[in-house]
Amino acid sequence: MGKRVVRIAMNGVTGRMGYTHHLVRSLLAMRERGGLELPDGTTVWPEPVLVGRNPAKLAAIAEAHDLKDWTTSLDEVLADETVEIYFDAQTTSEHFPALSSAIDAGKAVYVEKPSASTLAEAVALAVAADTRGVPNGVVMDKLFLPGLRKLRRLIEGGALGRIIALRGEFGYWVFEGDWQPSQRPSWNYRAEDGGGIVADMFCHWRYVLDEVVAPVHSVYAQVATHLPTRWDEHGQPYSATADDAAFAVFELDGGVVAQINSSWATRVFRDELVEFHVDGTEGSAVAGLQRCRYQPRAVTPRATWDPDAPPGYDFRAGWQEVPDNGATGNAFERQWEAFLSHVVAGTPFPWDLWAGARGVQLASLGVQSAREGRKLEVPALEAPAS
Amino acid sequence: MGKRVVRIAMNGVTGRMGYTHHLVRSLLAMRERGGLELPDGTTVWPEPVLVGRNPAKLAAIAEAHDLKDWTTSLDEVLADETVEIYFDAQTTSEHFPALSSAIDAGKAVYVEKPSASTLAEAVALAVAADTRGVPNGVVMDKLFLPGLRKLRRLIEGGALGRIIALRGEFGYWVFEGDWQPSQRPSWNYRAEDGGGIVADMFCHWRYVLDEVVAPVHSVYAQVATHLPTRWDEHGQPYSATADDAAFAVFELDGGVVAQINSSWATRVFRDELVEFHVDGTEGSAVAGLQRCRYQPRAVTPRATWDPDAPPGYDFRAGWQEVPDNGATGNAFERQWEAFLSHVVAGTPFPWDLWAGARGVQLASLGVQSAREGRKLEVPALEAPAS
Amino acid sequence: MGKRVVRIAMNGVTGRMGYTHHLVRSLLAMRERGGLELPDGTTVWPEPVLVGRNPAKLAAIAEAHDLKDWTTSLDEVLADETVEIYFDAQTTSEHFPALSSAIDAGKAVYVEKPSASTLAEAVALAVAADTRGVPNGVVMDKLFLPGLRKLRRLIEGGALGRIIALRGEFGYWVFEGDWQPSQRPSWNYRAEDGGGIVADMFCHWRYVLDEVVAPVHSVYAQVATHLPTRWDEHGQPYSATADDAAFAVFELDGGVVAQINSSWATRVFRDELVEFHVDGTEGSAVAGLQRCRYQPRAVTPRATWDPDAPPGYDFRAGWQEVPDNGATGNAFERQWEAFLSHVVAGTPFPWDLWAGARGVQLASLGVQSAREGRKLEVPALEAPAS
Amino acid sequence: MGKRVVRIAMNGVTGRMGYTHHLVRSLLAMRERGGLELPDGTTVWPEPVLVGRNPAKLAAIAEAHDLKDWTTSLDEVLADETVEIYFDAQTTSEHFPALSSAIDAGKAVYVEKPSASTLAEAVALAVAADTRGVPNGVVMDKLFLPGLRKLRRLIEGGALGRIIALRGEFGYWVFEGDWQPSQRPSWNYRAEDGGGIVADMFCHWRYVLDEVVAPVHSVYAQVATHLPTRWDEHGQPYSATADDAAFAVFELDGGVVAQINSSWATRVFRDELVEFHVDGTEGSAVAGLQRCRYQPRAVTPRATWDPDAPPGYDFRAGWQEVPDNGATGNAFERQWEAFLSHVVAGTPFPWDLWAGARGVQLASLGVQSAREGRKLEVPALEAPAS
Repeated sequence: MGKRVVRIAMNGVTGRMGYTHHLVRSLLAMRERGGLELPDGTTVWPEPVLVGRNPAKLAAIAEAHDLKDWTTSLDEVLADETVEIYFDAQTTSEHFPALSSAIDAGKAVYVEKPSASTLAEAVALAVAADTRGVPNGVVMDKLFLPGLRKLRRLIEGGALGRIIALRGEFGYWVFEGDWQPSQRPSWNYRAEDGGGIVADMFCHWRYVLDEVVAPVHSVYAQVATHLPTRWDEHGQPYSATADDAAFAVFELDGGVVAQINSSWATRVFRDELVEFHVDGTEGSAVAGLQRCRYQPRAVTPRATWDPDAPPGYDFRAGWQEVPDNGATGNAFERQWEAFLSHVVAGTPFPWDLWAGARGVQLASLGVQSAREGRKLEVPALEAPAS
Repeated sequence: MGKRVVRIAMNGVTGRMGYTHHLVRSLLAMRERGGLELPDGTTVWPEPVLVGRNPAKLAAIAEAHDLKDWTTSLDEVLADETVEIYFDAQTTSEHFPALSSAIDAGKAVYVEKPSASTLAEAVALAVAADTRGVPNGVVMDKLFLPGLRKLRRLIEGGALGRIIALRGEFGYWVFEGDWQPSQRPSWNYRAEDGGGIVADMFCHWRYVLDEVVAPVHSVYAQVATHLPTRWDEHGQPYSATADDAAFAVFELDGGVVAQINSSWATRVFRDELVEFHVDGTEGSAVAGLQRCRYQPRAVTPRATWDPDAPPGYDFRAGWQEVPDNGATGNAFERQWEAFLSHVVAGTPFPWDLWAGARGVQLASLGVQSAREGRKLEVPALEAPAS
Repeated sequence: MGKRVVRIAMNGVTGRMGYTHHLVRSLLAMRERGGLELPDGTTVWPEPVLVGRNPAKLAAIAEAHDLKDWTTSLDEVLADETVEIYFDAQTTSEHFPALSSAIDAGKAVYVEKPSASTLAEAVALAVAADTRGVPNGVVMDKLFLPGLRKLRRLIEGGALGRIIALRGEFGYWVFEGDWQPSQRPSWNYRAEDGGGIVADMFCHWRYVLDEVVAPVHSVYAQVATHLPTRWDEHGQPYSATADDAAFAVFELDGGVVAQINSSWATRVFRDELVEFHVDGTEGSAVAGLQRCRYQPRAVTPRATWDPDAPPGYDFRAGWQEVPDNGATGNAFERQWEAFLSHVVAGTPFPWDLWAGARGVQLASLGVQSAREGRKLEVPALEAPAS
Repeated sequence: MGKRVVRIAMNGVTGRMGYTHHLVRSLLAMRERGGLELPDGTTVWPEPVLVGRNPAKLAAIAEAHDLKDWTTSLDEVLADETVEIYFDAQTTSEHFPALSSAIDAGKAVYVEKPSASTLAEAVALAVAADTRGVPNGVVMDKLFLPGLRKLRRLIEGGALGRIIALRGEFGYWVFEGDWQPSQRPSWNYRAEDGGGIVADMFCHWRYVLDEVVAPVHSVYAQVATHLPTRWDEHGQPYSATADDAAFAVFELDGGVVAQINSSWATRVFRDELVEFHVDGTEGSAVAGLQRCRYQPRAVTPRATWDPDAPPGYDFRAGWQEVPDNGATGNAFERQWEAFLSHVVAGTPFPWDLWAGARGVQLASLGVQSAREGRKLEVPALEAPAS
């Protein structure tokens, strides 16, 4: 009972994701609401310890939010026994060494996706955490957004019957940067800097498919670099070497086909930037991040294919908005709540480093499939034989 | 000048396509408007000669529309020198023998797609027509519909700039037949009867892509039989052995990627049963059969990816309806006009038996790709070396 | 780096424009956001020194906004070496003597439009500022409003192609004052007090045309005093001696014709009080102060002129809203940011006293054209030969 | 009483205007309704005698509409004493000789606008008709359209009070002909063939202003050829030598200013292709050809000019639709009714050859004003001293 302070080393909070989504909107928001109350009445009080390289920025953030602890020494913070959790929102290539050290130091670890740059590293982290026995998790925020939570609720309730197929459209037009400034950083478009839409988005598709629909067992991907020249943050043209679009077909257990397009070079004719259309024998759903629409078998129109007739039926009007019924709130904060409860009270937390490694695996196989022009099976991940 | 009667043997007019689209809405509609006026002032007057197996049905149609000639003998009609054109709307497997005879008899030939059941037959027909020197054509009605004509106008006018990708969604829910009757014939779902969505639709996708966007050079397809049991015209359950959905990725010349899903087991959340979303550097278009919407670069919104923020922008409202500006009328009749003008006045008609064979080819390669799980190149069609 | 305080003498802040737009919504708003950050990291902190004739009003404003300095002595403030900028929002006739003194004192000067009452004075100010080498600027707020910024973006991006014509409609019904009180001061309608719509608005039209479309090279104007009697602030009738409407045709470089009507005696059947309709070969735009709509060539309807047919096409629906994509914010504050950056960091600022003089010139030529009933060329402005 | 047959020689009925508007929709429509009933109970029965150069076309029209008389000889028809009225819808340059002969022959004459190619000819026709004492008229259909009839009703009822100004916008985008075919004939754009928008439209503006608002007494016009190259009926490029846009300012009696833009190179952001906005002291009206909206003084909003504030008022919603109250019907037919009544029963018909000459005069002065860059007075027309 009573208040349980949990000290959390937060590495990478000077970046946009770490600062806005994890520090401000998750942990500080949780404090503003009085901490996280667990079922047994305990109140968890997160106490961030800021970690980073730029002391001026760290000091400024600490001051602005009235936080006491910050440091530029990762070693120091990992040696601090009062720190229970190590969180990492650095760029992907820095995850592996930092997480390895944190696991060695016995910290619970939580990390932004992708959990590592390569599948080998991602698996190594999962194995290390299991061996050392530390709680561990990977950020999979989409699962906690209202749209996908409502979709999941529909599926779990049997409203779609047997699921047969999913179509996903993700994307928007990322400005080239010549006429109007680009709304994403230029490294996203350079392969040599770890850019590319497959690396960025297939991690998400893996956990969305695995958890909301069914486990993925094969992948086919066609990639493209639609816009070979872009203009960077200084208005200088550069060659885009990474893929900016991917057209993928996944097979899931149970005979489900999931076709997902991802693109930074498409103009949006949807209600949301990403939408998943799921068809089942008893009904279909269209879910974005926020909204979810449903059409049951009973109100499915009997469309007929008469090319010369103007469309006489308003097909979009035949879908119903699924009510929130509580599926609201900040997705990142929700997952933090689950992770803190897992660390403190041992509640289940399936989104671990193995799940993170499965995301890295799908991106890796997607790139290989595109290169080889063939469908690849997605094997189960295992710890390498020692 | 003056009136030029053209006698046309119409085989298969007792079926829905042949009767409604070709006889009534095309040739008889043309007569109601006084015939087809050619640029040189000649008025072409089509005179149908009905051909079929069921004399009662033929007689009934002839009487209903005040037509004089009908016969159950294909040989007789092909031997009639006053007949200039042979049109075939029979089931696919019957095209080859009938068209072969008509070509031998020196008739101009016009046929519903697919032009033949196999690529070998389709090529053989094209070669035969070339050898005999007869005008020939295959129905490719989608090209003549308002939506695709407006799309083509946009592309030809440069409104999209360099095209980078196309996404196509075709499909609707074809009722299983148990609870509500199915709106398609059962043979469509039996492989042994020539059914399957790949065979039915890839012919269309071939000419749409080739003519409106760019020539197809590779295909990848994943197929599925989502609903393994259906109920037939007599309410009896049967096993669906043919594919009822196909998820395809095509590569077109110029680096364009075209991703098209086709399904008879999906619920429609679109404005039309088929929609093509085409993205280009200068603008994008979404075209159905009737409508076409456009978003130029100049009004493309600067969307940002903030998962936690509700969509604050009405993306669909940022598209404009492309005005018809004359792109109206019955698609089948428009293509008949072009074919009659080709036969009588020698005007160009690119939609010949070779184009028809290319459609059959794409369907054939689609099936093979799905079986082998790999992307296949689409070779140029040639007459076999003799 | 660090904070750089800039002391600004603000003359005329007891009037509506000076108080609301320049003091409260611009400089004080800037302070509320923590000052103006320059690219080199310096933070500019504006420190207003209020100048005026009414000590009670000045003291009240200073107290309300927690400002320390105010004075009724212009001489004193100009002699204060810590004051860097002199800003003038007095009535037009008072600009010349005050600005002349400020320039003599070596202050950077910034002034509401029109910069002076006569072209001679306006040019003299520009020459004096150049000679003394002081930074100088004239308020041209319309350029910084969302509507015109979006219009400019369209034009710069080539979305209109070659521009051929502009139509502008400005105006609204300014109540006569007998039945309902007038919403403008009575001096606006008295020529002897510097009133008149040409004097007021042609300054704006000059910079809008010159900067957004193309330089003006000729003017024709027809003026009118539509309502010869009005009622003043005390409910007394008076004779309106100034023009309250002007119908102008300008020629711009490149063969563009710009036709602009301005009126205080018209009822508004538009979305905004001012709208500019710009036609180009590749597209057209309709921009107000806030909104901007666009119709590209590709969706231009093929209208036909059939007087007897009811309009069958919704022409207004064929235009798309141009998204803001960042073109937001208070226009006056935006221009203050640009001027402060010009004074402190030397960044370019084209809206100087010469540009201000060009506005006065156009108003002057407009009045002359209306009197003489002929089109007048607009000569380039030069410093008079000394 | 009873039926009074009026034989009418119709010259030029093989053209679109003559055939559709005058023959089919006016005189034949009148016959379908049983003829024109005059107040005294007489029923006027128009009996067209078709005149033209192409016997085949004349015969075809006659046959299609079951008419008996047609001829290729103008002399013959003018010598036929049973013919009372001569109507001319030939191209403008042919009006003068034909009408001169018809007047000589003592026929009542009625002619499409412009009544002649030059002011001298137009006046000569008016003088001749007066001298010979024949009824005469010129087509001024716009006056008989619902929109302008409702506007006129408002004005005559005093709903606008004293009129102070009119703004007119006419135009639409006439396709260049390269990408999409042009919707007007190419001669409209060649000065050498009598083309030009001033020649075409100023005739209309003259009678609209004179009759609906107040007599015109001065004109200023700026013309332009916005699109110097167009493509003709055969797809060939040609140089557009005539004006395709005119920006005019007229002064009317009573101090009214009328500003009217006419253009074939503008995209329409209005409800109708032409709209007249008329402001008066007691109210304003916006009239197109079909619709008319009204805003009285009592509901005029008190708009304020605050550039930074988004428009908070829906100005267009503050106008009311003026009900038809009988102001419907085909404009051409209505004027034919008035002319026939004038010929048969002597009712007033103010739209005579003098009114027609005033239209030609305004076009002529418009061209001169544009050339000289100055405002020109519009003198009263008189018969030349003999």
